[in-house]
Amino acid sequence: MDAEPTLLVLDLVGTFAFGLNGALTAVRAARLDVVGVLTLGMITALGGGVIRDVLIGATPPATFLDWRYFALAAGGATIAFALSRRLHRLQTLITVFDAIGLSVFAVIGAGKALAYGIGPAPAILLGVVTAVGGGTIRDTLIRQVPTVLQSELYAIPALIAAGLTVLAIELGVYGLPAALGAAAVCFVIRMLGVRYGLNAPRPPGSSWRAEQ
Amino acid sequence: MDAEPTLLVLDLVGTFAFGLNGALTAVRAARLDVVGVLTLGMITALGGGVIRDVLIGATPPATFLDWRYFALAAGGATIAFALSRRLHRLQTLITVFDAIGLSVFAVIGAGKALAYGIGPAPAILLGVVTAVGGGTIRDTLIRQVPTVLQSELYAIPALIAAGLTVLAIELGVYGLPAALGAAAVCFVIRMLGVRYGLNAPRPPGSSWRAEQ
Amino acid sequence: MDAEPTLLVLDLVGTFAFGLNGALTAVRAARLDVVGVLTLGMITALGGGVIRDVLIGATPPATFLDWRYFALAAGGATIAFALSRRLHRLQTLITVFDAIGLSVFAVIGAGKALAYGIGPAPAILLGVVTAVGGGTIRDTLIRQVPTVLQSELYAIPALIAAGLTVLAIELGVYGLPAALGAAAVCFVIRMLGVRYGLNAPRPPGSSWRAEQ
Repeated sequence: MDAEPTLLVLDLVGTFAFGLNGALTAVRAARLDVVGVLTLGMITALGGGVIRDVLIGATPPATFLDWRYFALAAGGATIAFALSRRLHRLQTLITVFDAIGLSVFAVIGAGKALAYGIGPAPAILLGVVTAVGGGTIRDTLIRQVPTVLQSELYAIPALIAAGLTVLAIELGVYGLPAALGAAAVCFVIRMLGVRYGLNAPRPPGSSWRAEQ
Repeated sequence: MDAEPTLLVLDLVGTFAFGLNGALTAVRAARLDVVGVLTLGMITALGGGVIRDVLIGATPPATFLDWRYFALAAGGATIAFALSRRLHRLQTLITVFDAIGLSVFAVIGAGKALAYGIGPAPAILLGVVTAVGGGTIRDTLIRQVPTVLQSELYAIPALIAAGLTVLAIELGVYGLPAALGAAAVCFVIRMLGVRYGLNAPRPPGSSWRAEQ
Repeated sequence: MDAEPTLLVLDLVGTFAFGLNGALTAVRAARLDVVGVLTLGMITALGGGVIRDVLIGATPPATFLDWRYFALAAGGATIAFALSRRLHRLQTLITVFDAIGLSVFAVIGAGKALAYGIGPAPAILLGVVTAVGGGTIRDTLIRQVPTVLQSELYAIPALIAAGLTVLAIELGVYGLPAALGAAAVCFVIRMLGVRYGLNAPRPPGSSWRAEQ
């Protein structure tokens, strides 16, 4: 039922990126101490996968059974904490690491859901939930409206990556290249959205600005 | 283990109502863009059922396996988004749709818990959790204190409807009429509470107002 | 799979303490009415155990199957609501009850995870999740940054207690005395941290204050 080794590496990369992201967010947005920084980093890194595994009935979640998830989440958070003082352009790093985690988790989440016998459409949805889950908990805990609700093309690229993943699996061409390709599509769309301030349309006729 | 067809219709009505409610809340309270509106609508519509199914061990949750839940949640949210500009008295609509979802989900949730072999008292509690779950996640994500904590008779009518449902099942008279009756009791109490500003008692001697 | 009787008593003590704590928090921090106070008390008391049981796959959670958890959570919350007007030094009581629940749930959570065949390291983590879960939901619902992120030695004593529990079980010396000892270590460290304002280190070179 587990991902093949090369995909596991990808999953661990996403975990590490979200660990870095969550810890940097804790340093920047909430100015927490070391325990708070590590905790938020680990929740961000492990949250999406835990939600996915609970929803597909794969309990206990893989993140509790495989020490490498735990180590990479904690390692990423610790590195971010230690280096946060020296890092410049913290917001850019936060956005990039978040986009990496989003992209990888959308792919891995959709693939794992399919592997557990879940149909294509719900597997895509589970990929999105995996991708945005950790970040949504992160934002909620530090009292920000979650990125997934504020958009700038956040859920949509995850949906595309999860869809491409399910398509590749159904076509029998899934593997590390296809997974990397799907993740890259998500990453590029997300970063373009951030770079050019692209947003999905607002309610017809409205001229509101999203709340910060 | 699934609800009989007529009850499934009721469940889908609740899903649709919560989809409308969540999307209108996103438009009104948080002024989100289209992805945010659809996302909040779907989380509100599907959240309670997902929590219920995870708690009774019915994973993957029905909402991931049956495309009709997904379609009605997304459909309700899309309709609300498209019409939100033309709708007047948005707050009234939000309250009414929320009360419909609350009432239906309390009944369906308690019934499904019993069907999974859970005892009467915890089944009632699970009905309440199903009823208030989606709305609580909705409020938390947009940084409002959840309605269930602010009351105006919110958890209590859900508790009554779930209790009536369990009673009807134990007496062997459960079916669409009984389910509709229990939901109607919840709906009426909830709307009377909103209409006349009825609230449960505050701590003895206090004259505080609930925080907004 | 269930804890032996003496450990069940300890678990119920923690449930009762968190019920008192959650209700007093609702009275003090959010000024909710009776339904809100009872609801927050029960969520605080039952939340950690529900999360633990969902994660280890022990669904439905014990708190839904054993009426004593429900009764003690509701009882604690009701007592706190009724007496809140007469109680002085509410903040001290809130802190003490929270520390009792934290300590007991770290021990019971780690022990239950091990009993379900989960390895030592993830069992320790699950003990911490059990300990901090209810309070984290409590804080999130009333829009406060969770104590676990703000620290003052909150997650660390829970980690130590869960670690001691796993050690005692592995050494074959676990029982009520060992459980009480591990919980006492957690309680003392937590209270010393509160009393002397001890905090974990902040990011290198920073002089920030945690946001309130």
